[in-house]
Amino acid sequence: MKQTKARIVAEGVGLLSKSGLAGVTLGVLATQTGMSKSGLFAHFKSKEEVQLQLLDETTRIAQATVIEPALKTPAGLKRLRVLFDRWLGWSEKAGLGGGCAVAGGFFELDDVPDTDPVRQRLVAMELEFRNLLITIARDAVKQGELRADLDVSQFVWEMCGLYLNHHVSYRFIRDPRATRRAQLAFDELVRRSQPVKSAGMARQKKRRIKMSC
Amino acid sequence: MKQTKARIVAEGVGLLSKSGLAGVTLGVLATQTGMSKSGLFAHFKSKEEVQLQLLDETTRIAQATVIEPALKTPAGLKRLRVLFDRWLGWSEKAGLGGGCAVAGGFFELDDVPDTDPVRQRLVAMELEFRNLLITIARDAVKQGELRADLDVSQFVWEMCGLYLNHHVSYRFIRDPRATRRAQLAFDELVRRSQPVKSAGMARQKKRRIKMSC
Repeated sequence: MKQTKARIVAEGVGLLSKSGLAGVTLGVLATQTGMSKSGLFAHFKSKEEVQLQLLDETTRIAQATVIEPALKTPAGLKRLRVLFDRWLGWSEKAGLGGGCAVAGGFFELDDVPDTDPVRQRLVAMELEFRNLLITIARDAVKQGELRADLDVSQFVWEMCGLYLNHHVSYRFIRDPRATRRAQLAFDELVRRSQPVKSAGMARQKKRRIKMSC
Repeated sequence: MKQTKARIVAEGVGLLSKSGLAGVTLGVLATQTGMSKSGLFAHFKSKEEVQLQLLDETTRIAQATVIEPALKTPAGLKRLRVLFDRWLGWSEKAGLGGGCAVAGGFFELDDVPDTDPVRQRLVAMELEFRNLLITIARDAVKQGELRADLDVSQFVWEMCGLYLNHHVSYRFIRDPRATRRAQLAFDELVRRSQPVKSAGMARQKKRRIKMSC
């Protein structure tokens, strides 16, 4: 029973990655797993329960592919860089066969009511992830690698935009420069968020002034 | 005949905005327009033809809501600012009742084959739009409002990320600061793409040096 359910979830998570939440119907999932619809109903109460479990499994895979390698890196800017690098095209790295179901869900579920449980789960997942990014960026601030007065929420907000446009450019437009562009933009975001080496620069300037006088 | 078709398209474009391409089924569209499925088939050969016509109508509305007001503004940075401002939440401004079907389509159609005509239309639409942004940004470069050595494609790439994350933050997460964050990020993108007023600054510095000596 448990094994069958695990097999359905493993198949389903690939289907979700390729076809989005709307594509995960019990009919398609039954065909893909070689089961009957009533066979599926022995494991899941509803389409909604299937979607929730597949989203949870997607999160588990993303955690292993993106977050764990980052958390193994020393805290601070290095961890942030590893996370960003692993994040770009993570579903492909994880062998899911399609795109990021979470990002797809942002556009599928923006107009469903706030009370929808799948929407609620996805919002909670995204807020938790954005908060993790904020924590990692704050560590970089504490270590003096990013500016003390940096608006960390704004920094993370801009990072999320780079991820989303990488997804579009790489997977939808299929622009071969997509990853390069995302990395350039991230490097530039980091560069302008770093502390101005004011003390050192001021000293240098002073020396030049003395010499020119 | 023409009037009925126009009514179906007007209804359908709202449905597309709210439910995405996957949500535009002939069944739902028939219910929404109070027609039979066979009645719909008198106007459209297939679901694909419905989707293509609804995407074309979405483009026409986006053109009127976002692009035309920008093109009425003098060329250069001012035009770019008006475009960005009109672009954020444009589907709401146009009264479509849902999100940007084009952005939604990026995530719905990333895994369908390259030969899919709806995918092809959407890719062509997006490339045309990104090229328009590049042209407008280049005008700002020609007028000296943006740096002569600016990587304009990279600039536009980053703008697109801000739009996508605004869509997610505003419509999906429903963050009340979404528009403010997008505008802050755009202002910062423009600021760091402007020419360094090197001549003027150098002169000021010289004056300060003389005074301190």
